[in-house]
Amino acid sequence: MTYQGPSVFRRAVSELAKLPGIGEKTACRLVFFLVQKDEKFVQNLALALNEVKTALELCSICFGYTDQNPCPICSVSIIDGGIDAGIDSGRNHGRDSGLICVVEDPSDLFAIERSGQYQGVYHVLHGKLAPLDGVGPEDLKVSELLLRVETKPPREVILATNPDLEGDATALYLAKLLGERGIHATRIAMGIPMGGHLEYTDQVTLGRAIVERREFQIR
Amino acid sequence: MTYQGPSVFRRAVSELAKLPGIGEKTACRLVFFLVQKDEKFVQNLALALNEVKTALELCSICFGYTDQNPCPICSVSIIDGGIDAGIDSGRNHGRDSGLICVVEDPSDLFAIERSGQYQGVYHVLHGKLAPLDGVGPEDLKVSELLLRVETKPPREVILATNPDLEGDATALYLAKLLGERGIHATRIAMGIPMGGHLEYTDQVTLGRAIVERREFQIR
Repeated sequence: MTYQGPSVFRRAVSELAKLPGIGEKTACRLVFFLVQKDEKFVQNLALALNEVKTALELCSICFGYTDQNPCPICSVSIIDGGIDAGIDSGRNHGRDSGLICVVEDPSDLFAIERSGQYQGVYHVLHGKLAPLDGVGPEDLKVSELLLRVETKPPREVILATNPDLEGDATALYLAKLLGERGIHATRIAMGIPMGGHLEYTDQVTLGRAIVERREFQIR
Repeated sequence: MTYQGPSVFRRAVSELAKLPGIGEKTACRLVFFLVQKDEKFVQNLALALNEVKTALELCSICFGYTDQNPCPICSVSIIDGGIDAGIDSGRNHGRDSGLICVVEDPSDLFAIERSGQYQGVYHVLHGKLAPLDGVGPEDLKVSELLLRVETKPPREVILATNPDLEGDATALYLAKLLGERGIHATRIAMGIPMGGHLEYTDQVTLGRAIVERREFQIR
């Protein structure tokens, strides 16, 4: 029988190893790192993790994660229907509530925000249709989306679910529902990523980039 | 200006990103994972991290991490000088205090324990000699090792520092000091790792494996 180390050590390793992408070896390495750091460092980490869990909730409008309700994006857009030009505190520009971007997960919302190219608002589905896994429209924030667009019809809804089988099916499903309600639905563009090479791009992406080619926009 | 997400979220990401091998993207992914887990999960993780930092101390004999002093390995070996056959609680066999294995870090101790091949005790140096980085013998647990072997001379000291330039130098340095005190010092074997291929083994390792070849042990 070998000595497995102190029980507090084993417990910290097993808790860390429950995180995605962290195996037992990495967990071990992290614990050794933490033990060598001062107590304040570890306390800050533990506190931040507890806090993020207790403080975050879903925004009642867009269902993204937020620590204030409605979230900063929704709250600067609810003053009127169009672009809110009144509030510009430096941090939050007014957001265009006439443009709704539908994403699968809260992480997608942050990814789009990081691009800096979007000034509309969001709607987080919290998943995608996956009939094989038993995920239907009632498991997603679909009825909430429909209620939202019926209450205040937007100019456009961008369907930005991931470009895979289930994401595409979800987008198509929503496009149909939105079309029935007279809402203009668009799909986020798919194609060759910036900096990519045609030679190394997979055939499905390349095929789609050819089919969905667009006009030059020369001004 | 883009919306960076709630401040508690950003704080958790930045704390996690301070860990080795975890960048901002991984940290983001971990926080999204944690937010989706229930509160108990996050509390357990935070508690385990705090606990491991506060409960662990250095064993006063071998300087490994432990939550009891002396550590379980040292405490079952201090009854008498040889193998302690008296205590065998099922978890801890008696350990041979006549055999001391010197390692660089506490993580090396656990690595050797996992091999299940070692029944002696340990001495953790907490580093290796690195003159270029200003690490001398006084920064390591070298005087503690000498005091230990002088107080109760062991039959053998295995120098199991890592097989790199500084680890080798540290082993050589300690071998000289131990030799002066009439202590038998050995070096952990280096060679081709189990399952390795000669063809793909680096030339230094292969050269060393040839030079340090050994007799067959046929019984």
